Amino acid sequence: PKEDLRLERARASFNSRELEVLLAGGKDNYKLRQRIASVMTTNEAFSKRGKYFDERDELYERTLRMYLALPSAVASMNEKEPIAVARIMRELIDEPGGLDLHLGMFIPTIQGQGDEEQRKYWIPKCVKLECVGTYAQTELGHGTYLRGLETTATYDEEREEFVVHSPTLTSTKWWPGGLGKTSTHAVVMARLFTKGVDHGVHPFVVQIRDNKTHEPLPGCTIGDIGNKMGYNAVDNGFLRFDHVRVQRRAMLMGHSKVERDGTYVPAPVAKVSYGTMVFIRSDIVMNAALYMKKAVTIAIRYNLVRRQSNADEVTGMECQVIDYQHSQRTLFPILAKAFAFHCTSDYMRRMYFEFQRDSREKKDFSALPELHATSSGLKAYCSWATKDAIEACRLTCGGHGYMNLAGFGTTLATYAPNVTYEGDNNVLCLQTARYLLKAHRKMLNGQPPVDALRYLDGASSRSALALGASLRDEKAILDAYAHRAWRLVTEASKVTGDLSPDEAMRVHMVQWIGAAKAHCAFVVMYNFVLAYDETRSRVSAETLNVLHRLVCLHGLCGMDDTMGEFLEDGHIDGEQAAEIRQEIFKLLSEIRPDAAALVDSFGLHDYFLNSALGAKDGDVYRRLYEEVQAAPFNRKHTPPGYTELLQPKLSRGNFGVSKL
Amino acid sequence: PKEDLRLERARASFNSRELEVLLAGGKDNYKLRQRIASVMTTNEAFSKRGKYFDERDELYERTLRMYLALPSAVASMNEKEPIAVARIMRELIDEPGGLDLHLGMFIPTIQGQGDEEQRKYWIPKCVKLECVGTYAQTELGHGTYLRGLETTATYDEEREEFVVHSPTLTSTKWWPGGLGKTSTHAVVMARLFTKGVDHGVHPFVVQIRDNKTHEPLPGCTIGDIGNKMGYNAVDNGFLRFDHVRVQRRAMLMGHSKVERDGTYVPAPVAKVSYGTMVFIRSDIVMNAALYMKKAVTIAIRYNLVRRQSNADEVTGMECQVIDYQHSQRTLFPILAKAFAFHCTSDYMRRMYFEFQRDSREKKDFSALPELHATSSGLKAYCSWATKDAIEACRLTCGGHGYMNLAGFGTTLATYAPNVTYEGDNNVLCLQTARYLLKAHRKMLNGQPPVDALRYLDGASSRSALALGASLRDEKAILDAYAHRAWRLVTEASKVTGDLSPDEAMRVHMVQWIGAAKAHCAFVVMYNFVLAYDETRSRVSAETLNVLHRLVCLHGLCGMDDTMGEFLEDGHIDGEQAAEIRQEIFKLLSEIRPDAAALVDSFGLHDYFLNSALGAKDGDVYRRLYEEVQAAPFNRKHTPPGYTELLQPKLSRGNFGVSKL
Ligand SMILES: Cc1cc2nc3c(=O)[nH]c(=O)nc-3n(C[C@H](O)[C@H](O)[C@H](O)COP(=O)(O)OP(=O)(O)OC[C@H]3O[C@@H](n4cnc5c(N)ncnc54)[C@H](O)[C@@H]3O)c2cc1C
Ligand SMILES: Cc1cc2nc3c(=O)[nH]c(=O)nc-3n(C[C@H](O)[C@H](O)[C@H](O)COP(=O)(O)OP(=O)(O)OC[C@H]3O[C@@H](n4cnc5c(N)ncnc54)[C@H](O)[C@@H]3O)c2cc1C
Repeated sequence: PKEDLRLERARASFNSRELEVLLAGGKDNYKLRQRIASVMTTNEAFSKRGKYFDERDELYERTLRMYLALPSAVASMNEKEPIAVARIMRELIDEPGGLDLHLGMFIPTIQGQGDEEQRKYWIPKCVKLECVGTYAQTELGHGTYLRGLETTATYDEEREEFVVHSPTLTSTKWWPGGLGKTSTHAVVMARLFTKGVDHGVHPFVVQIRDNKTHEPLPGCTIGDIGNKMGYNAVDNGFLRFDHVRVQRRAMLMGHSKVERDGTYVPAPVAKVSYGTMVFIRSDIVMNAALYMKKAVTIAIRYNLVRRQSNADEVTGMECQVIDYQHSQRTLFPILAKAFAFHCTSDYMRRMYFEFQRDSREKKDFSALPELHATSSGLKAYCSWATKDAIEACRLTCGGHGYMNLAGFGTTLATYAPNVTYEGDNNVLCLQTARYLLKAHRKMLNGQPPVDALRYLDGASSRSALALGASLRDEKAILDAYAHRAWRLVTEASKVTGDLSPDEAMRVHMVQWIGAAKAHCAFVVMYNFVLAYDETRSRVSAETLNVLHRLVCLHGLCGMDDTMGEFLEDGHIDGEQAAEIRQEIFKLLSEIRPDAAALVDSFGLHDYFLNSALGAKDGDVYRRLYEEVQAAPFNRKHTPPGYTELLQPKLSRGNFGVSKL
Repeated sequence: PKEDLRLERARASFNSRELEVLLAGGKDNYKLRQRIASVMTTNEAFSKRGKYFDERDELYERTLRMYLALPSAVASMNEKEPIAVARIMRELIDEPGGLDLHLGMFIPTIQGQGDEEQRKYWIPKCVKLECVGTYAQTELGHGTYLRGLETTATYDEEREEFVVHSPTLTSTKWWPGGLGKTSTHAVVMARLFTKGVDHGVHPFVVQIRDNKTHEPLPGCTIGDIGNKMGYNAVDNGFLRFDHVRVQRRAMLMGHSKVERDGTYVPAPVAKVSYGTMVFIRSDIVMNAALYMKKAVTIAIRYNLVRRQSNADEVTGMECQVIDYQHSQRTLFPILAKAFAFHCTSDYMRRMYFEFQRDSREKKDFSALPELHATSSGLKAYCSWATKDAIEACRLTCGGHGYMNLAGFGTTLATYAPNVTYEGDNNVLCLQTARYLLKAHRKMLNGQPPVDALRYLDGASSRSALALGASLRDEKAILDAYAHRAWRLVTEASKVTGDLSPDEAMRVHMVQWIGAAKAHCAFVVMYNFVLAYDETRSRVSAETLNVLHRLVCLHGLCGMDDTMGEFLEDGHIDGEQAAEIRQEIFKLLSEIRPDAAALVDSFGLHDYFLNSALGAKDGDVYRRLYEEVQAAPFNRKHTPPGYTELLQPKLSRGNFGVSKL
């Protein structure tokens, strides 16, 4: 197997190192990543040895230990940008843990929603881990619909305190990460009442456990919500309040306030906090690219090494399973999509930082609606695609893909909730659709759409009819995507007619979601084409050539997979559909020799991959055999319950003398 | 929530009990199932309490205990058909365990491949559990390709023994269920050598562990392959032989033989063992129906109870999430498909038993090729669909669907390998395609195809052009399926042209698989329509009406999901495609009031479902809250590693006096 991969690498038509540096964002970043990986692999605190056999408490503790080892590991590197280093380290740890919400939500919420004094008070304590916090929004009965939350925080003017309370079973806080056992504090989203008036949901910092004993504080009932499909290093928890009293200043008052006498002062500008949401969603898009790369790296390497069936008559060597067309048709489009998502997430970051700058420097918030709509849709589009891709990659690996040691199972299980949290994907698509329809309607009324929606005028879609001309013309393919999105948005707009948006969304929900997806497919293809153009001057002709194949493959496979949408209005006819399929098969065989080098260019370290099937050297069988020896089940030669359950029966058997 | 389900049941347009009895196969079966469930739920040995929080050794032992409790539970019922009772009980246990291969493969292989004397010797010991066996075929380096197996059994004429040996790392037996820790014996598939000649792979019964001590016997290296995505109550294992000697009669000699002097006597009739394979595959189709029912029952019940968003202005009640169109468009087609698969598996059983009878009574094996091809394709088609359906159902349940207590995670994880074992699905599709193309070619040469393939003449496909006439005409819809399958098989046949089947399969693999899938989609729709017709005289008009909607929904959604294949040759035009979508939405709203009653009609017992979201009474939130209290993480109020890792930091925190 090692030899197989060596030969495959030697076949490549381009220099994978060149592409690796490009994807890493330049030589410096590339080297930094290398250094970080070597620091982590030589530090026992970060060891993943035996991780796939961890029971839940072991996994929790292992992960906690890794997070706690981060600060000194980061410091030891002495880099200019410690935050960037920590970020990469967390990426390599590749497991959300009990401190995730503390770092990812508790601190940022205090930073974003607290006032100056509150920030000054809390942040240092957070950094020193004198408290660990979580973000408690979701309730047993309430998730998507924020306004439905039932937990109350009622202001008591006499004592200048809030009374935080869970009035019903369904108001129990449910899901917050790190709440189950780790946290001492929580940002609690609760319905604020002052003077009998309901002001809607606001954030409160509430201490929930004693700092010395870790016992839940009086009035707090807390626990873990038990095992989940994945995410089991995180102690997602539940929390009920029985009239718990907190100081007035427990409310985060960066925006709205309650004064001593109970006067409610609403936030001056609403929606300022949308920025964070956009940021988190762009993170999810970036992660989508990362996990797609991970899954396809493992699968392609194993498919190059695995030989099964079709033994050569002369050599007796069986065929590399990647040479089965169905493996290629599954894996190479995912490979291409990983590149496409990489480019899309670059674009989102850029858009986000431009917005940040403009909103700070010029108080210009005008990009927000577009940013919000795009990030919502892309979060949904990319996380769905990635979840499906991980599973599809696994399936090309036969039985061994099902073992934990392959790495697919845990990757999928822990990736899966990306389609549910930070906005359920369907709900996000509806938001994107609503924005698209609004823009479309405005355009009909003569207002030109923002740049990203220029295709809505249908102009680019006309030229796409010439697609047949060249199936390797990425701009023509992009036009087909523009056409499809334009058509689906236009039709959704048409059926909506005079209905109120709410009513229309209800009756035409599936169609709206379809329009949003088509838009997102266009945006992804658009960014891939754009990035390819920008790369022209920066890489060798060979690398560019390979990238061009990936752009075309991504474009054509995306069409083939939803061909009905292109055929339905005759934009493409049956013959063209068949041609597209033929062209895809050509592309697959052109990409085939570069498969090993392409996944190498993602530069994913073995420590990150943590996969016996996907390790860089291809030494699959030795790894599987060796790693399996450490499985806890192998500590004893008898199974659990043997003495009581099996021995009495088995020991009656006597097979020593028989001739059978 | 309980009230919600009560009201939903009251809304039904038909009597769910009537349908339940029909699906159970009559009143007697219906009652038998009820009795079995009540026996099991009152027997502590079968308890599933806390199962979702089991660590691996607990899950193994719990499951083993259940299997061991089966014989007396079956006996206690005193039924005429104890085997049928045991089968239903295993279905309700709903967890493959360490004895699964013993019951499902070891015993049947001895029965099917052993000679009279061997059967007489082994079977009683197997039944008394004086030995536990497994079936060891797959090797670390060899799965699909049986001829690639490397384990050898070399006959030593001197000592009249076989020497069983694992010559390489890749020849290590890998995957057999129950091998890791449970089994004392294995049927080992090994390459037989006599007098230096390789006779290919044959089955040998080899003792691998000592009956008294359970230690691996000399020359056997055995262990567990560690945690998998699911299936963790089974100890899938590995096994290496170092020149292990067994008696000559260890070889199962029901078909081929080796005589004392080493003469090899081949089997008189080849392929007799295909029957078993067909049986196992038809089992997988039946299970597909069962697990689809399970997932959709849980999801529909929860979607009826869960209320989220769109609060009513007057009552403040939020909307039942099933009333979101995207939930219905996901769940109701799966509901319909569960019925379709139910009918398909009935048909496969019937086909199988007819073949059994004909082959036994009339020595007529002529149905085998068709049976083999159909069961291969349907195994693939149904297991793929079911795996996807379980995940789709989960996604409609938001965050709670991700908890183990929901039941989706473990169901999916343990169902997943159905697409890989008993023949990888892609490989099976290719076998089906090969058969279809052969039949097509014969037909072109004037030989009429078997009944099931009559559509290959393209005759029925012509009338389908009139589809637009009535989208509620199930026969017209079926014709569209026939047309699509006919077209794809014909085209695959055309491109194959003069290529050898092997070469054609290689170059057109994806197209071949597509043709096989289209054929299977037709077969499933065909059986659904047929079963519907047969039901006409047996149920009330109301029930028939409901079934008719399901048949149409299944047919139309299957088209909508792959619309490109119908549009590509103009069999359907864009307007019809749009009409089909409209009709689907109409059907969804017609089915909506019957949703609760329809899943009730599957008659799945709460004990089987084992889901806080899917229990019959709909009391979701109370169940979640109560069951979570038992999670092992909640035994202590501190997390694992607390004293060492967290306490030193947290205890420095002091929040008692602050005003914040
Ligand atoms: C692993 C994990 C970690 C989490 N961590 C946290 C955390 O740290 N803190 C926290 O507060 N929460 C957390 N959550 C909860 C998470 O935020 C919610 O699960 C998420 O918001 C979805 O809400 P829900 O589960 O209530 O789904 P629901 O809203 O009940 O959705 C159910 C179904 O209804 C549909 N639906 C709902 N509303 C609409 C609508 N308006 N239009 C159309 N369709 C609709 C959805 O599409 C979905 O199909 C976590 C969840 C998971 C799975
Ligand atoms: C949970 C579980 C339990 C199991 N239990 C047992 C057991 O009890 N006893 C036992 O002996 N085995 C067992 N197995 C092993 C199982 O039978 C094999 O995994 C299965 O046969 C597939 O073989 P493979 O894993 O080697 O996949 P591979 O054959 O390596 O397949 C890898 C890829 O190559 C493709 N491929 C392979 N050959 C061809 C071809 N000719 N044409 C086109 N594509 C091809 C496949 O489609 C797949 O995409 C078990 C497996 C699992 C997951």
